[in-house]
Amino acid sequence: MKQIAVIGSGIIGTSWAVVFARAGCQVRLYDGEAAQRERAAAGLQEAVQSSSALLREGDGVADVLARVRQETSLEAALAGADYVQEAISEQLPAKRELFAAMDAQLPAHVILASSSSTYGVSRFADDLPGRARCLVVHPMTPPHLMPVVEIAPAPWTDAEVTRQAFEFMGELGQVPVRINKEISGFVLNRLQGALLAEMFQVIADGVISARDADLLLSQGLGLRWATVGPLEGVDLNAPGGIADYLGRYGHIFNGMAAEKGLPAPVDEALTARLDAEMRASLALDGLARKRNWRDLAVVQVRQAMQPLYGEKP
Amino acid sequence: MKQIAVIGSGIIGTSWAVVFARAGCQVRLYDGEAAQRERAAAGLQEAVQSSSALLREGDGVADVLARVRQETSLEAALAGADYVQEAISEQLPAKRELFAAMDAQLPAHVILASSSSTYGVSRFADDLPGRARCLVVHPMTPPHLMPVVEIAPAPWTDAEVTRQAFEFMGELGQVPVRINKEISGFVLNRLQGALLAEMFQVIADGVISARDADLLLSQGLGLRWATVGPLEGVDLNAPGGIADYLGRYGHIFNGMAAEKGLPAPVDEALTARLDAEMRASLALDGLARKRNWRDLAVVQVRQAMQPLYGEKP
Repeated sequence: MKQIAVIGSGIIGTSWAVVFARAGCQVRLYDGEAAQRERAAAGLQEAVQSSSALLREGDGVADVLARVRQETSLEAALAGADYVQEAISEQLPAKRELFAAMDAQLPAHVILASSSSTYGVSRFADDLPGRARCLVVHPMTPPHLMPVVEIAPAPWTDAEVTRQAFEFMGELGQVPVRINKEISGFVLNRLQGALLAEMFQVIADGVISARDADLLLSQGLGLRWATVGPLEGVDLNAPGGIADYLGRYGHIFNGMAAEKGLPAPVDEALTARLDAEMRASLALDGLARKRNWRDLAVVQVRQAMQPLYGEKP
Repeated sequence: MKQIAVIGSGIIGTSWAVVFARAGCQVRLYDGEAAQRERAAAGLQEAVQSSSALLREGDGVADVLARVRQETSLEAALAGADYVQEAISEQLPAKRELFAAMDAQLPAHVILASSSSTYGVSRFADDLPGRARCLVVHPMTPPHLMPVVEIAPAPWTDAEVTRQAFEFMGELGQVPVRINKEISGFVLNRLQGALLAEMFQVIADGVISARDADLLLSQGLGLRWATVGPLEGVDLNAPGGIADYLGRYGHIFNGMAAEKGLPAPVDEALTARLDAEMRASLALDGLARKRNWRDLAVVQVRQAMQPLYGEKP
């Protein structure tokens, strides 16, 4: 993918432009509003500058910025594009209209990716002749800092399009993950939402202050999860890995669910599924090595953060 | 606090011993099992060695280890202690018996802290003459790497004891947070449990693989939460801070709750409470500065992790 069109130059579109440009792509960034284009110029500069440690070797801030051109017409932005990343606001009618226009203008091989965080692409591209090249490529905000990207195809998205989008994100240095069903909020926002909802509850109940609830993450769970994900984390916390862990502590999760009148999340089928997947990627005799790696990584993250705490606003 | 008794030398007790010893305290570490004492000797060495970057200036691995003495009797471990950290297994009868013995032996000013992750101290120290000096000081495992500590007094714990425990943890370089009610699992494990339960659900439903679900944290939310907590995070994600954010997106959390038949977590009272607390610590005109700080911090964490990814087992 050499030439990329980014449609919408708000915080997400601007950040996407940086992701593409720092990987060497030519970017045409479109926004219909003149005031927004001005803000975007400043935003691009700021984003590349403040993340200059993440640029490719040999690339300076000016090199990256030179690969982004702001366009005042949609047609000009799309002309010659190999891949389009839509990043307009979360309004279904506007997305529907934009995807119809893009599908009409662009040759069939060009991938049309939406940054939607809420809607599956089925909600606004279902009736397009070229819908097979449409899918959601939802970043964590802002993508030039946060690597993970949710790739969510519709049932009718061409599997080859999904594969290409996945591969392309990897080439850019992002970390693509596959969302198999177009559920609302995909997975990233559901996980965040589940944790926040629990946090809201304990704060509303007077159990903890907002400040202290935040510290449980920024001085605790966040330090761990910056190194290993939650499932990797529990896999390391019992001698027999995740199956052993769920055998010992699964009742705690089921108890919390029962308190809320929800079905038990941990059962034999889930345990077998997780055990199979975790053990396929790391045998039990590798857990000790991974524990050491995690501990080393946490120390590194703490050392990186240490000088910054004193300057935190 | 100069002399500390740590009771139980499993993973948590050993790690606690390191926390106290590296801050300069003399530590007496007790375990009744000879085999466990042998494992603990190796564990201590390993823990201090692998976290040597976190030692005080001028302290070597040997200096820290020299401050820990393993004891073969409970009485000897407790003799002369200023503070006791219990770290035995999560069995109520064993905790009850231990706290009774400690309360009988130790002078009234010595704080008796339990590492329990499950039970409030009310569950096993309720009938002790000296219950006012008992409370839970629950670490994230392992405490020599994870700073956050939950301080959970019972209703009858002396407020001065709670204050001293809080202050002491801060002096050790840990980050204490206050748990106002003895709810099961306190808050850390409830937050982790809420996120894991959602993760179990989407995996069981076939929406995402375990590997990809973990990446949403280790390459996404975890990188953010290692720098700012979730509430700070959403506070930065709307121009008017958390009140503005909940005004715009609160319906999403309430929608997720409704899907599960749960009450809406976001209402006016919660919004007002969070707004008041967040704005008391940072005015709206400081948000831009904090956003810049967060972005810089994420870059630092990514740079710290970058060389490690290739070695991850």
